[in-house]
Amino acid sequence: MVVGSVALDTVITPFGEAKDMLGGSAVYFSLAASLYAPVRFVGVVGDDFPEGAVDLLGSKGVDLAGLQRVPGKTFRWGGKYGYDLNQRDTLFTELNVFEQFRPDLPERYRDTRYVFLGNIDPALQASVLRQVLSPAIVAGDTMNFWIDLKHDELMDVVAKLDVLLLNDGEVRQMADEPNLLKAANIVLDRGPKSVVVKKGEHGAMMVLPSGCFFAPAFPLDSVIDPTGAGDSFAGGFMGYLASCRVPGEAALRGAIVHGSVVASFCVEDFGVNRLASLTMEEIEERVVEFKKLTTFDLGHREGVGSE
Amino acid sequence: MVVGSVALDTVITPFGEAKDMLGGSAVYFSLAASLYAPVRFVGVVGDDFPEGAVDLLGSKGVDLAGLQRVPGKTFRWGGKYGYDLNQRDTLFTELNVFEQFRPDLPERYRDTRYVFLGNIDPALQASVLRQVLSPAIVAGDTMNFWIDLKHDELMDVVAKLDVLLLNDGEVRQMADEPNLLKAANIVLDRGPKSVVVKKGEHGAMMVLPSGCFFAPAFPLDSVIDPTGAGDSFAGGFMGYLASCRVPGEAALRGAIVHGSVVASFCVEDFGVNRLASLTMEEIEERVVEFKKLTTFDLGHREGVGSE
Repeated sequence: MVVGSVALDTVITPFGEAKDMLGGSAVYFSLAASLYAPVRFVGVVGDDFPEGAVDLLGSKGVDLAGLQRVPGKTFRWGGKYGYDLNQRDTLFTELNVFEQFRPDLPERYRDTRYVFLGNIDPALQASVLRQVLSPAIVAGDTMNFWIDLKHDELMDVVAKLDVLLLNDGEVRQMADEPNLLKAANIVLDRGPKSVVVKKGEHGAMMVLPSGCFFAPAFPLDSVIDPTGAGDSFAGGFMGYLASCRVPGEAALRGAIVHGSVVASFCVEDFGVNRLASLTMEEIEERVVEFKKLTTFDLGHREGVGSE
Repeated sequence: MVVGSVALDTVITPFGEAKDMLGGSAVYFSLAASLYAPVRFVGVVGDDFPEGAVDLLGSKGVDLAGLQRVPGKTFRWGGKYGYDLNQRDTLFTELNVFEQFRPDLPERYRDTRYVFLGNIDPALQASVLRQVLSPAIVAGDTMNFWIDLKHDELMDVVAKLDVLLLNDGEVRQMADEPNLLKAANIVLDRGPKSVVVKKGEHGAMMVLPSGCFFAPAFPLDSVIDPTGAGDSFAGGFMGYLASCRVPGEAALRGAIVHGSVVASFCVEDFGVNRLASLTMEEIEERVVEFKKLTTFDLGHREGVGSE
């Protein structure tokens, strides 16, 4: 189950522009996670939302019982990327109906085992969590805005998470510490069972009480639109985890790799276009390549025992 | 064998300052590489160079027959790091005797099999290469200055290298391409058999015609002085390679890991202090941790065959 935003995104990149395309954290997450496991969706759209714009989600088997349609305008976001695609400027954020969003879970969602709390007001994240009976894994995301303005409410939610997903800047901000490893450990001390640090083109790091895991970003020679990379990472991550027999550390490591791979597909086309056509066969192929990219062994020195 | 700079470095960091301490690319390289294999040194110092300042190299078995002592002042470099240690400002660069350096190899160096051309004028790199009879592996480094001002001479050397080591900014500059993977492949097309991209705290990437390899930086919660990180990476890399039975792709991958590990020790103290006391046991211990940091397997999903 995912709770998060549904948006009409306007994106400007050096490779082209798109206006009012389907987007939002819950949408990217769902498209990614639905490749691995059934997804329950919680979100809100306005009465201006195009009929049929969520047909794509329905076609992937996403349960839309939790999608509210209310009077008013749908959440809109606009962003512009420069040529190196690492930096983006937010052109506008119109919360619209998202501002009054009160997530009410359909009765049949209450037994959900895998919960992803997208980047929304921490008070709403807490409210969603209260409505779920006995989750196995709860993961959550947030952003600089909530870290600044709703710090205490946010840290109450963070303490209850199995997995906190943040980008590197957010981890440093939350911990008020520039060293990333120190910062992640400071955040870990606040209660979550693990902290996953998304570093964009520099990969991802997971910090657990038992140690760390690193995965590079899958190397791409063509990045078209980075929008949704973090949310599709989260979707691949949670989807993989939900499909595992035991959600322990080995599964978490695999989940980081799958999250990275799904995100690598996401950014190869505008908006949700690539996720819409993505197959598990393509994912598995790239995961095998990923393994080759990162594998080394240590038995090559003369006079040193092989292992 | 290494040819490169010997310097008296002045370093200012938020954690302290040091004036006229032993430094330079050939020094950092030698201290790192000497943990793995015998090192032959080629460099120059002035007559102001403190007697005994190279005793440390001698004590590590480094062959100093190629160290010239000439009238004049020793090369001096000063740098200042900010609190996040990722950016540095060069305070001054006084080439002094380094400006007139003409590397002449002692006769007994001419059969050297593993050659590292540190960051010096490409014309001098070429001259060193002409003096070596039949090297097995030649690796080289450079910097933005030579890429701009001696482009053609540099590319002549680059074409002859087995391994070109650059940082990410230098690869982008050499290829005139912002995408790092594309840039590395453009550089690879210019002739070197492999391109190793050093990304500092974001790890290292190696690009070969047969594919890529990625290694993260070893995670550190305390970085004191980043000076020499790239050169000690190169020293660990070449030292490891020289100690391998076959310098093929598997050895190159191990070399990247060893380079990363040696560099991670280097930055934990000022100047060459940590390298001076470093042991192979400490390296091996951290290499095992490195393996744990990056290992994942893929057999955890329900209904998916284990591998």
